[in-house]
Amino acid sequence: MPRPGHQVADEQHHPAPRPGPLMIIGGAEDKLRRRTILTDFVTACGGGDARIVVIPTASSLGDEVVQVYDALFRKLGAGAVTGCRPESREEAHDPDLVKVIDEATGVFMTGGNQLKLSAIIGGTPVGDAVVRAHRRGAVVGGTSAGASIQSSHMVAFGPGGATPKQRMTQVAAGLGLLATTVIDQHFDQRNRYGRLLMIVAQSPDLLGIGVDEDTCATVTVEDDHEILRVTGRGAVTILDPAQLVTNAYEAKRSSPLLASGVVLHVLPAGTAYDLTDRALLPHVPHVSDADAAELAEAQADLRQMARDIAADDVGPTHLRRRLARKRAPRKTGRTVEAPHDDQHEEQDGDPR
Amino acid sequence: MPRPGHQVADEQHHPAPRPGPLMIIGGAEDKLRRRTILTDFVTACGGGDARIVVIPTASSLGDEVVQVYDALFRKLGAGAVTGCRPESREEAHDPDLVKVIDEATGVFMTGGNQLKLSAIIGGTPVGDAVVRAHRRGAVVGGTSAGASIQSSHMVAFGPGGATPKQRMTQVAAGLGLLATTVIDQHFDQRNRYGRLLMIVAQSPDLLGIGVDEDTCATVTVEDDHEILRVTGRGAVTILDPAQLVTNAYEAKRSSPLLASGVVLHVLPAGTAYDLTDRALLPHVPHVSDADAAELAEAQADLRQMARDIAADDVGPTHLRRRLARKRAPRKTGRTVEAPHDDQHEEQDGDPR
Repeated sequence: MPRPGHQVADEQHHPAPRPGPLMIIGGAEDKLRRRTILTDFVTACGGGDARIVVIPTASSLGDEVVQVYDALFRKLGAGAVTGCRPESREEAHDPDLVKVIDEATGVFMTGGNQLKLSAIIGGTPVGDAVVRAHRRGAVVGGTSAGASIQSSHMVAFGPGGATPKQRMTQVAAGLGLLATTVIDQHFDQRNRYGRLLMIVAQSPDLLGIGVDEDTCATVTVEDDHEILRVTGRGAVTILDPAQLVTNAYEAKRSSPLLASGVVLHVLPAGTAYDLTDRALLPHVPHVSDADAAELAEAQADLRQMARDIAADDVGPTHLRRRLARKRAPRKTGRTVEAPHDDQHEEQDGDPR
Repeated sequence: MPRPGHQVADEQHHPAPRPGPLMIIGGAEDKLRRRTILTDFVTACGGGDARIVVIPTASSLGDEVVQVYDALFRKLGAGAVTGCRPESREEAHDPDLVKVIDEATGVFMTGGNQLKLSAIIGGTPVGDAVVRAHRRGAVVGGTSAGASIQSSHMVAFGPGGATPKQRMTQVAAGLGLLATTVIDQHFDQRNRYGRLLMIVAQSPDLLGIGVDEDTCATVTVEDDHEILRVTGRGAVTILDPAQLVTNAYEAKRSSPLLASGVVLHVLPAGTAYDLTDRALLPHVPHVSDADAAELAEAQADLRQMARDIAADDVGPTHLRRRLARKRAPRKTGRTVEAPHDDQHEEQDGDPR
């Protein structure tokens, strides 16, 4: 929690700050090739002006992990990168660590064991500083364990499996940057429908959010709504249990749970979901450049044809000849734009 | 398809026959211990009067598989068991095989490769005889491949994974015993959310049904509704895509699919789902004997207390004494019923 004095000063002199973006990454984000997600993170933190704090407490490697992200973030243009590695609750009271977080434009929490991370920083000045950073508008990102801890209710651990079973997983308190949610990661790769369904069946107030590897759910506040946007290679799966019927309160031992009426949203890159209204944002279909050009041409053809018919000066032969004339130069044009053409054909062709 | 002559005779002399039960088993049904599902199958087929045909065409083992089910079904009391093993489309025209199926009270299709099964018997007299057996009221059961082929649209093959991806799986025509459905099996164990979601995203007219191992979805017609009831160790997962929003028609290569608004039902043993209305049947919570006894006792206590208060002859001490008197003999009774008590405590206690 922010110190009361600090908070009062804020309220007196500034408008209420807007919370910063959350970047919830499902683990195994690309670090070697296109690095889309990490590039987005550095950009959101301010690029050359970014002051990024890396918290590697979840990891058993620690300093090595800081070195990796330090090198990555600097290569991607970050102004400054600092490690912040409390390894005990006592260290998580260190005012120097708190100061580093308080001055950061972005906080990045690495992967590892989320229960280690929450058990060490939860309810400490370092944990509070991360919450404060989010509230004052800094970017908070995290991958794997660092994603899980951002939710109010955190999956502590538990096996994979598609079917929810009583007792298959444990919930602990996350930092609560995203309220009334439970976030799971490596969702596709580690088969985690079952444990996320178990949690929302027992706690249907929560929204379940499963993030695939090398995939990022970025949450920003827009017009007082929390909007989740997806980037990266996989998908974000949302389980909305508001209409749930369940037997979770009476299921014995490890028996499968009744979880009927859960609404499911699988969201790939480019899609967005309104967490406040719990609704998909309208999907804008992608039209490639080649498609757009062809559509424009077809429309022009149709207009000319309509004029010809209205003028009554046209028979089928005439039309065929004109179309052939128009197609010829276009074909040459398309050969030059081979990559576009390829993309276009895939769109038209039946999936094989 | 039944021969036209046969069909006309039926219509003239008998009321329209009622379709028999479908038993859709998710693979790896228990064969050594309680054998709940296979026992149910033999019972449904008529027990001592059962004439069961085993079709092992999906399996690469064939005769050995027939021997296993022959031994199992006989041990479970089946009157007669016969193998029917076409290994080519030509053999699937054999009138002797058709005759065996036409005289059966139950047909059982084994696991293996469902595409082998559908490619050999689909559209042949043997395949038609299985459809006819179902329509005239015989039981049709199948496990794994033998489950998949019962749907109208069959998952041919495809990898596991939680997230639906374009092209990750193939659909072929099943026997269509269960119309407008796609059935998948080993659902929990082989992580098959992704491929079932891909299919319903591309074909939102279909209902997706995923059956776990050692779990059976039994479909019967009751009051003109198809009712699915669950037995066995796992769960049946239903994906209802009627309200789906998708980009399946434009997703490139193997990219993850948008599949938003799919309604999900995870149904453990003892639950039932109306396939015609696409709705969960009301869930009747289970009350253990120990709980029922305690509830009855509590009600009696409350009634006595109400009488005492009405008669104005009671103070707190009086009540406490009476409750202590009542509890004493009950405690002894509970000690004798240790197993019930244990079950009762599990129900009340918080899950550990």
